[in-house]
Amino acid sequence: MKSLLDISVILKSRDDFYILTHKNPDGDTIGSTYALCRALQKLGKRAKVLCSDEIPDRYKFVEQYVKKEDFEPRFIVSVDVASTNQFEGALLRYADSVDLCIDHHMTNKNYADITFVDAMSASASEIIYSLIKILGVDIDKQIATCLYVGVSTDTGCFKYSNVTAKTHKIAADLIEKGIDLGKLNKLLFDTKPKRFVNLEMLIYKSMKYFFQDRCAITLVTLEMMQKAGVSEDELEGIASIPRSIEGVEVGVTIKEKKVGVYRVSVRTQENVNAVGICERFGGGGHACAAGFTYEGNIENLHSDILAVIKEKIKV
Amino acid sequence: MKSLLDISVILKSRDDFYILTHKNPDGDTIGSTYALCRALQKLGKRAKVLCSDEIPDRYKFVEQYVKKEDFEPRFIVSVDVASTNQFEGALLRYADSVDLCIDHHMTNKNYADITFVDAMSASASEIIYSLIKILGVDIDKQIATCLYVGVSTDTGCFKYSNVTAKTHKIAADLIEKGIDLGKLNKLLFDTKPKRFVNLEMLIYKSMKYFFQDRCAITLVTLEMMQKAGVSEDELEGIASIPRSIEGVEVGVTIKEKKVGVYRVSVRTQENVNAVGICERFGGGGHACAAGFTYEGNIENLHSDILAVIKEKIKV
Repeated sequence: MKSLLDISVILKSRDDFYILTHKNPDGDTIGSTYALCRALQKLGKRAKVLCSDEIPDRYKFVEQYVKKEDFEPRFIVSVDVASTNQFEGALLRYADSVDLCIDHHMTNKNYADITFVDAMSASASEIIYSLIKILGVDIDKQIATCLYVGVSTDTGCFKYSNVTAKTHKIAADLIEKGIDLGKLNKLLFDTKPKRFVNLEMLIYKSMKYFFQDRCAITLVTLEMMQKAGVSEDELEGIASIPRSIEGVEVGVTIKEKKVGVYRVSVRTQENVNAVGICERFGGGGHACAAGFTYEGNIENLHSDILAVIKEKIKV
Repeated sequence: MKSLLDISVILKSRDDFYILTHKNPDGDTIGSTYALCRALQKLGKRAKVLCSDEIPDRYKFVEQYVKKEDFEPRFIVSVDVASTNQFEGALLRYADSVDLCIDHHMTNKNYADITFVDAMSASASEIIYSLIKILGVDIDKQIATCLYVGVSTDTGCFKYSNVTAKTHKIAADLIEKGIDLGKLNKLLFDTKPKRFVNLEMLIYKSMKYFFQDRCAITLVTLEMMQKAGVSEDELEGIASIPRSIEGVEVGVTIKEKKVGVYRVSVRTQENVNAVGICERFGGGGHACAAGFTYEGNIENLHSDILAVIKEKIKV
């Protein structure tokens, strides 16, 4: 595998970058790509971020941190995208022509010409932080803000088991760049619209327990979202709710995407491999947090996933 | 004010320490006192921690980190105790004879012979971390674990506005001492007993909004706790629930302690001073997190606190 130093040399020798995020963008794919985009622009390069979906409202402020330019790409980078099935819509056309992929998913499919994966990094933003340092670009307040968004959201605000000493050291350095920490944390972790509170109550009501409460499954239907007045892109944090209940080793959150299509998020304790469960359904992710998309009816989904979980937790 | 170096010299010259926590002990007062106790024991001193209440279950494991010894005190230290009204029961007898108080509350009442306050520290544990370094005691895994409990719980897992770069640097250092980070975070921040989920639903149901939703007040009665099966010492985190709702500048959580006695927690956004509200009721705390105890009936409490809040947020 090429080193970050090799990659910095390659980036310096190229220009006209398209930087691709994964679909259903989260804080890490957005934070890391915008940080890289601004860093490349600071090196005098042309660069833009492409995302197949609308950027969720809470992250939209990062768009102002980069110059908007129209150009044809001459080098395509993806960040935090483990597999080409994480591209959708307008981004599908680039699936076969990614020059460089920078990622922290163990399950990365090696679809790019050059792939750099560091699965020990809690977020792709941690890798981009190191890369920007190596590129010799000054981490200004805007870059620091983008990176903090990624570093903090992908660790549940420094709570998940992927956190390392390095994660905190990076956070300390980003804070010293003058980011508006209190405001950011409030925005990212401590602001729940009233409508979200309503949805949470519906989620807890719909929670079902299996295998002596070692597994909890909740279902969020389009009707529930409508009833609570919550939109799809606001649902990022809910996947961790079932596993947060004491004793639950496998927490499953099923979101209805449209009639007959479900997005399934699996969160596990250390003794159960989430990605092992999700790969059985064509999905991917990390050891404790993974997901897949399911087409079919909800009863089949329930019984299919329960069968796999039963096998994995050795009931 | 004496420096931490002065204080380290004093501690080294003394022996037979009683180390006092505040009542209703939280992660910070427990983590900081047990860390200091073990550090002093490692210097060959006799030391013990005294707390007027039972240590909450989730923190009980720290008790095994210190040697249990019986002796009469010759030097009394309090940590994280802003005022002598934070002593209760068996600890009241020491209220007038505290030799040294180490604290991070701006509102510290200077009741000890020697007082060291650093209001810029997010937790008392941050100060004890520096003190132990200056004492020259090796921060072993047990001390690091105690300090991490304090540093992380007093910042809502690095989320609150009191977090600084130093907070993260300390966390990084503690992690490098080999603490069981994933397990600790899970225990402290990501484990909700089912009964707690039930209580949360009751809390959200009881939430009342005032002043165009700029203030939210919730009431937790003894009956609600009984209904949900939750005990008093499990309620540490609920105080932040009302303020976490979008648009709420002042979040108030009222806990019924016994008939006619209420513990009131006030959490505010930066534009409102929580301690300013609570001092009107004889309480104290920090700019964004404060509290007081109220005796009387709940209707009066409601109208009294709403009157003060109305004035503070200039409705």
